[in-house]
Amino acid sequence: MTVVERPVIPASRYVARLARAAEVAAAADIDALLIGVGSDLRYLTGYEALPLERLTMLVLVPGREPVLVVPRLERGAAEAGLRTPIEIATWDETDDPYRLAVARLAVRRVAVSDTMLAMHLLRLQTTLGPHVRCTLASSVLRDLRMIKDDDEIALLRLAAEAADRVVATIAAGRLVGRTEADVAREVRERLLDEGHETAMFAIVASGPNSASPHHEASERVIAAGEPIVLDIGGTLGGYGSDITRTLWVTGGDPANGPDERFRHLFNVLHHAQAAGTQAVAPGVACEAIDAAARRPIDDEGYGVAFFHRTGHGIGLDGHEDPYLVTGNPLPLRTGMAFSVEPGIYLTGEYGARIEDIVVCGSDGPVVLNRAPRELLVVDG
Amino acid sequence: MTVVERPVIPASRYVARLARAAEVAAAADIDALLIGVGSDLRYLTGYEALPLERLTMLVLVPGREPVLVVPRLERGAAEAGLRTPIEIATWDETDDPYRLAVARLAVRRVAVSDTMLAMHLLRLQTTLGPHVRCTLASSVLRDLRMIKDDDEIALLRLAAEAADRVVATIAAGRLVGRTEADVAREVRERLLDEGHETAMFAIVASGPNSASPHHEASERVIAAGEPIVLDIGGTLGGYGSDITRTLWVTGGDPANGPDERFRHLFNVLHHAQAAGTQAVAPGVACEAIDAAARRPIDDEGYGVAFFHRTGHGIGLDGHEDPYLVTGNPLPLRTGMAFSVEPGIYLTGEYGARIEDIVVCGSDGPVVLNRAPRELLVVDG
Repeated sequence: MTVVERPVIPASRYVARLARAAEVAAAADIDALLIGVGSDLRYLTGYEALPLERLTMLVLVPGREPVLVVPRLERGAAEAGLRTPIEIATWDETDDPYRLAVARLAVRRVAVSDTMLAMHLLRLQTTLGPHVRCTLASSVLRDLRMIKDDDEIALLRLAAEAADRVVATIAAGRLVGRTEADVAREVRERLLDEGHETAMFAIVASGPNSASPHHEASERVIAAGEPIVLDIGGTLGGYGSDITRTLWVTGGDPANGPDERFRHLFNVLHHAQAAGTQAVAPGVACEAIDAAARRPIDDEGYGVAFFHRTGHGIGLDGHEDPYLVTGNPLPLRTGMAFSVEPGIYLTGEYGARIEDIVVCGSDGPVVLNRAPRELLVVDG
Repeated sequence: MTVVERPVIPASRYVARLARAAEVAAAADIDALLIGVGSDLRYLTGYEALPLERLTMLVLVPGREPVLVVPRLERGAAEAGLRTPIEIATWDETDDPYRLAVARLAVRRVAVSDTMLAMHLLRLQTTLGPHVRCTLASSVLRDLRMIKDDDEIALLRLAAEAADRVVATIAAGRLVGRTEADVAREVRERLLDEGHETAMFAIVASGPNSASPHHEASERVIAAGEPIVLDIGGTLGGYGSDITRTLWVTGGDPANGPDERFRHLFNVLHHAQAAGTQAVAPGVACEAIDAAARRPIDDEGYGVAFFHRTGHGIGLDGHEDPYLVTGNPLPLRTGMAFSVEPGIYLTGEYGARIEDIVVCGSDGPVVLNRAPRELLVVDG
């Protein structure tokens, strides 16, 4: 287990976030923010509530003190979990928590957290009545959560470096003859050993499976003479890691090295990933980063084989704003953190992807991952 | 790692579930079931989609073939994950998946899965328009999912027995001088070692924390002469485990044993848990099980200290229908699986809970957990 000093978000930060959220909501003509369990709640209060069926919800009305509605049996957990004091209103098992939360609000327009579950949202809508309009809280919170402060960037960096070490260990270990699922299990264990509190995903896509971007690690046995796309991540101190590297396993026999076509494909990809990263600077549109990464791939005729966006924001959620995708004109700002991860996929044959977490610095890109980006030709 | 033979749900079972869901939906005057990522999708198709922000949704219209809407980059994952062939409709990064999914449906009333995220539901509502009424899919699927078949019960049993072994190992190990969080970490590792694919929760609530039913394992150091409520679970083959046992750690000194008050409290609780379990039989109302477990606690004057329901259903979700709670008149049926878990909590002092997973058999309760229910007085 690697023990590292982690920044702690101070209570004053949560007070400021709550105040700013209320301010932005008021400016957007939103009468109340209704924040269920999830990363918005954690961002605003520090509380990591259990994602269960009983309603836990922060009610934030501009101009009033926030109230956290929690099931009575979780009062203790909420008191321990809140990082700044907030009034708690508890409900009992036979109460109607939706009435408790919103029945007395005089509202016309509310914003609900993007990850609120339908079981809660539909009941809230019924309680609020047909004339109250519901919109997504990301319209308010996006601008706050997208810009990471120094503590958040430090946590993203710790997470990235931990993931870097796992990639290095997996690439140096035995792979040929093992199933993808077995390697994925090792990835998850090593992420935890490196200080992650959760190992969220471990894509181990070998041979033809490497052409499926979100392949789920299967019982396929890895053979010598094929690529492996390794896309792994989790959370450390709440903040996400997400790295992709492409390996080629030879089984120790140089004759099993990558063919010329794969080498070419990979070189194009490597160039594209660097071009996307180098385009990062304050003021550059998200879609321009996507275009910068896409151009070298298009130019070599692989355009149709790169059929996903170039990247996604990362923070308390593994995927969050900003999204680096065609059609998103949002200009990058200092402190935004996101993946840059083009891929080339030849269905039925093989594919490759390279992904780093990049922060938009005041002078350009700050790349958090340090693992080598070259094609990792290993014995396996 | 314990390797056990696990039942595999055959493809024909998914075909039957899809047909039955469509039938129940039609009977309930629902024009379409819209099933997002989550256990409803897994129940109907076998597909465990990634819980990400891109829309994945099963569209099930009675009388038509079902269609699974997936992001293009997950086509491969969906093809590999579906346990019965279903038509796949993919969308590209710049498409509107909500239009693709529902724009051509002529519907007045749809049911959405209970765990669909607000980011998807609000956009679906916008696409469907104000005259389409949305209700929860649990109104349709509850009756199917509540009744477990033999394979599902076998998986629940395997999960319960694995959790039993973890409780036994933790109770036999060192506890005094360790933090709750450290013990929780060991619980999670052991659940995985015992064949769980996910360790969902590990409540380790020591001393006064034992009075907080959903306490999150903290940095508190466990001391001799206090109780620990251990409430742990995860999934094995997709199906949940969930067991609670109460320990008392003496540190090896019999003088640190439980005081008379705690022994009495625990005996009342033990009796209550047995009474709840023994009341299980087909036709008995859910609220009657709750009342059966509550009565012995009320009779001894601890009623106000048992402030949560007696139990929840368990299956592909850790908490699901049926809920054993006051006000739920639903009669138990053979094949229903749920927890029976009364607790007594004296805030600021200590508390205790006992929980088993119980299946309603044709003749009465079938208790899946076998770990001893007595107060576990251990050296720790």
